[in-house]
Amino acid sequence: MDISSIIGCVSGVGFILGTILMGGPIGMFINIPSILIVVGGTIAATMIGFPLGDIIGIAKTAIKVFMFKIEKAEDIIANLTEISNKARKGGLLSIEGDIQSTSDPYLAQALQMTVDGVKTEDIGQIMEKKMELTKKDLDTGSAIFASMAAYAPAFGMIGTLIGLVQMLANLDDPSTIGPKMAVAMITTFYGAIMANLFFIPMSDKLKGRTEEEITNMNIVYEGILSIREGEHPKLMEDKLKVYLGDGAKEEKK
Amino acid sequence: MDISSIIGCVSGVGFILGTILMGGPIGMFINIPSILIVVGGTIAATMIGFPLGDIIGIAKTAIKVFMFKIEKAEDIIANLTEISNKARKGGLLSIEGDIQSTSDPYLAQALQMTVDGVKTEDIGQIMEKKMELTKKDLDTGSAIFASMAAYAPAFGMIGTLIGLVQMLANLDDPSTIGPKMAVAMITTFYGAIMANLFFIPMSDKLKGRTEEEITNMNIVYEGILSIREGEHPKLMEDKLKVYLGDGAKEEKK
Amino acid sequence: MDISSIIGCVSGVGFILGTILMGGPIGMFINIPSILIVVGGTIAATMIGFPLGDIIGIAKTAIKVFMFKIEKAEDIIANLTEISNKARKGGLLSIEGDIQSTSDPYLAQALQMTVDGVKTEDIGQIMEKKMELTKKDLDTGSAIFASMAAYAPAFGMIGTLIGLVQMLANLDDPSTIGPKMAVAMITTFYGAIMANLFFIPMSDKLKGRTEEEITNMNIVYEGILSIREGEHPKLMEDKLKVYLGDGAKEEKK
Amino acid sequence: MDISSIIGCVSGVGFILGTILMGGPIGMFINIPSILIVVGGTIAATMIGFPLGDIIGIAKTAIKVFMFKIEKAEDIIANLTEISNKARKGGLLSIEGDIQSTSDPYLAQALQMTVDGVKTEDIGQIMEKKMELTKKDLDTGSAIFASMAAYAPAFGMIGTLIGLVQMLANLDDPSTIGPKMAVAMITTFYGAIMANLFFIPMSDKLKGRTEEEITNMNIVYEGILSIREGEHPKLMEDKLKVYLGDGAKEEKK
Amino acid sequence: MDISSIIGCVSGVGFILGTILMGGPIGMFINIPSILIVVGGTIAATMIGFPLGDIIGIAKTAIKVFMFKIEKAEDIIANLTEISNKARKGGLLSIEGDIQSTSDPYLAQALQMTVDGVKTEDIGQIMEKKMELTKKDLDTGSAIFASMAAYAPAFGMIGTLIGLVQMLANLDDPSTIGPKMAVAMITTFYGAIMANLFFIPMSDKLKGRTEEEITNMNIVYEGILSIREGEHPKLMEDKLKVYLGDGAKEEKK
Repeated sequence: MDISSIIGCVSGVGFILGTILMGGPIGMFINIPSILIVVGGTIAATMIGFPLGDIIGIAKTAIKVFMFKIEKAEDIIANLTEISNKARKGGLLSIEGDIQSTSDPYLAQALQMTVDGVKTEDIGQIMEKKMELTKKDLDTGSAIFASMAAYAPAFGMIGTLIGLVQMLANLDDPSTIGPKMAVAMITTFYGAIMANLFFIPMSDKLKGRTEEEITNMNIVYEGILSIREGEHPKLMEDKLKVYLGDGAKEEKK
Repeated sequence: MDISSIIGCVSGVGFILGTILMGGPIGMFINIPSILIVVGGTIAATMIGFPLGDIIGIAKTAIKVFMFKIEKAEDIIANLTEISNKARKGGLLSIEGDIQSTSDPYLAQALQMTVDGVKTEDIGQIMEKKMELTKKDLDTGSAIFASMAAYAPAFGMIGTLIGLVQMLANLDDPSTIGPKMAVAMITTFYGAIMANLFFIPMSDKLKGRTEEEITNMNIVYEGILSIREGEHPKLMEDKLKVYLGDGAKEEKK
Repeated sequence: MDISSIIGCVSGVGFILGTILMGGPIGMFINIPSILIVVGGTIAATMIGFPLGDIIGIAKTAIKVFMFKIEKAEDIIANLTEISNKARKGGLLSIEGDIQSTSDPYLAQALQMTVDGVKTEDIGQIMEKKMELTKKDLDTGSAIFASMAAYAPAFGMIGTLIGLVQMLANLDDPSTIGPKMAVAMITTFYGAIMANLFFIPMSDKLKGRTEEEITNMNIVYEGILSIREGEHPKLMEDKLKVYLGDGAKEEKK
Repeated sequence: MDISSIIGCVSGVGFILGTILMGGPIGMFINIPSILIVVGGTIAATMIGFPLGDIIGIAKTAIKVFMFKIEKAEDIIANLTEISNKARKGGLLSIEGDIQSTSDPYLAQALQMTVDGVKTEDIGQIMEKKMELTKKDLDTGSAIFASMAAYAPAFGMIGTLIGLVQMLANLDDPSTIGPKMAVAMITTFYGAIMANLFFIPMSDKLKGRTEEEITNMNIVYEGILSIREGEHPKLMEDKLKVYLGDGAKEEKK
Repeated sequence: MDISSIIGCVSGVGFILGTILMGGPIGMFINIPSILIVVGGTIAATMIGFPLGDIIGIAKTAIKVFMFKIEKAEDIIANLTEISNKARKGGLLSIEGDIQSTSDPYLAQALQMTVDGVKTEDIGQIMEKKMELTKKDLDTGSAIFASMAAYAPAFGMIGTLIGLVQMLANLDDPSTIGPKMAVAMITTFYGAIMANLFFIPMSDKLKGRTEEEITNMNIVYEGILSIREGEHPKLMEDKLKVYLGDGAKEEKK
């Protein structure tokens, strides 16, 4: 699982709880109606703005992103080099077995087309379109989180406005002004935390994940075309290793 | 109809009403002059910013988007495959009947040009331009909602400023300060709800819809060019099915 | 004249005046020094930010946009079809008369070059560059309005800050605090109205107008190149009619 | 010198001073510590954000932009036409004298390469790269002003926060609350003026200036390539005059 | 080391400390819980938003950017010219020694490929991809700082909200209101300083550094391809010197 996210979530919540507890009891920061309007409003607005399928999809994507590690580029390149060697020795048909054993449907389909003798150009077109569609899917996920990051503080403010209007309309008892305002401000507090500790970082992480995913798909794409064209495995490996970025900047001192 | 939008609207309004009712009577949140300046100002600014035709068009588009489902990509591909098979067996003229039976004018015109023997290149150019113009139309719709989402809170603030100035100019009776400020803040409340529960989500949904629409048009575009060129129906179907996205990411586990 | 803008302006001002009058006399919302700093500051900042020529140009453009209707695409296509027919029957020289009778200098110059026998490629290049320059001019106009939309609320806030500082420095007489704050807030009110009821909508309208203008220039561009190449008038008309957009989306039900 | 900027600066400062003086003495708006934190903080942040060379460069650029007029496109075209005529009559070598007499190093270098008989393609490449680098330089200038426009209000707010914290920590003497708050707000006032009357407009003007500069460089670029290729001077002049924009939009009535 | 950043940091902190000390003791601006929530929250959100590797990488990058000077373009060009001369005289193999002596792995790998006789096209492709990946890496760094610049004020506001809610819930003793509010506002103060004096400027500087780095890589790229193609060293030098920008704009007076 993604260790960085866990540390971030736990420590972020910890810092906020700690700050609250240093100043007084936690009880006054828990207010069910406030939670309802901020969480409920955010979800409601998101449901109007995006198709149900996408919203459910984003939940799945989120779990996947935070629970599973993406395949390492090194492993993909090693796997492709092996397949390339096999194809060079035994012909394209000899790689048919790898189609079953691969867990990546993108690679599997590309191998299938290679074995079937589909033209390089057609393989390229189909793979490019798949990459494009995957990118669009992941971008939609990132966009949904970004939208929620905008809705949460907005509904926080709406909740605060409701509380303020109700307080201002009944100023008879001055001693209740403070506590009422405190309650009114809690929705703004919830909205700010939801946006800044959850939705914005998750949108960022998904964006980064999308780039990694597309880089991996690019490696598979270039590797398969190279195999289809019968390029030497060593040359292919050299070209793909550029993606590992152990070159230029990193070693520059 | 679009079930996600209905749930979102109903629950969003519900959460807000619920939060209000838990704190006091709903009456103080209904204020006709406040509604007039926020709704009226938003519409007035939109009318200055966009041609009347576009504004009326956007209303129609909004109804269509929220009332009707877009055609499924699967059905479009199945239909195109059928037409391709017919054309392969009986020649391009045999698909003339499909022109009448199709409800999509984009497909109908493309079929007509195919039957008429217009050059592939010319068909392609005309279809591309149509796609581009449809995209521009839908983008205008999304832009109008986005503009309204910006105007609504602005006129909410203008209404609040009017209320505050009037209150501040007459501070004689301290007991009226609270209620007057409450009323002044209601326009800000209206503006925030209009923007965050309606205009922004609707702009988002329209953006998503535009993408689906253009994807569908792309499928028709590629299918028609394939039929015009006499490509094998099976190959065409394979290529179009990439759009269904049941590949790469989805099945990746 | 542009009916939508008139309705918008009149009703927008009406809603604001109505809201004010329902709450008290209009007098307290009219304050000459406040008008001076918001209007003056906005104009001053715009003059630093843009060359004098552009600012005067934008005033003219604004009048043109709000007073005159743009030529309809239908009429341009009909005119081009007529010229194409004439050229087909009587040769390119026969269209020399149309150069005088056209009121659009873009079309006139293009016709002149066609009659003069300038190469299609050169005509294309010159027309493309003209389109590009027209777009840049109109974009500058839209950018100036967008800048003014940002300056107006900023100088509104500067005015309010001046008023608040002066009020806070002299708190001796509590009874004057309210009225002084009311006056201080009027500049913020002016800035918000100027931006949201005038500058932002005008920038939006100019943006939309630019698109229409460029679409029209594109129609002329494609039409002239088609005439220069001697394409059949009917084919040209069919291609240009795509721009009318009476296809795809509109008729889709 | 740039008359529009002078009028803008003088009138902008005038409107602000006038508004202040109408409400009270100017003295309370002058506060040395407040100036220090806003001006100092803005400069400090800019120094961290940009290399020293760029910051000094931007000062020079600013002076140049506001003190010197850019060469008129008309004059550049006239000059190029003259050179083109000379080259046509006396050969490319006859224009060697113009290299010394031109004050524009971009034109001078281009002429030198033309006289030296460098291949058209190589001249084009070098001139394009020079244009690109000039654009990047000017864009950096505009970006620095835009950054300062963001820092100034931020440090204004930081100054106000310092003042408010100090005031709130010592509420013993209520009579000092007002004046202290007044002083605290002055930094916000300074930041708003610096951003809206100076940095934002200067960034805008620099952006406009960049476009003019690049247009001029484009004219020289096209002119030189035309001379190098031995195109007829009249044809070259016609092509370049498109840049003067006395066509399409302007004369459209 | 980067002198501009040091002056900026020292003077920026100095101006803020000076302003504080002119108004009272520094003690009330130091509050450990406030530092914890702003710094801690910012780091926590960043850890959720970006992979751990990237965050650690950014720290290293930051140190490098602020501690080491980038290689001067002049030196790179001089070095390439020397290598080009050597290759011209002694053949491509004679430059093998330079591979060891160069400290830039980007140049080293390019030289190695040149010596190995890799095709110009392949060298070009690999070098372009390396540039692209370096740019993406540096852009990620700039994006992380920009994210932190957004989180810091947000957690400052969250801290202030916590303080305000706690203060409002206990208004019993009016004499504590001021000091409590002062403490509450300190987190906002911290967030504003962290964003405006550190994260935003650092993001800006990293962006500028990225451009310089890429320009240098472009020089190496063009130089190596020129050497591989056997172009004359003088011609190569002339082409590369365009990057020094001692042309057009700079000398224009």
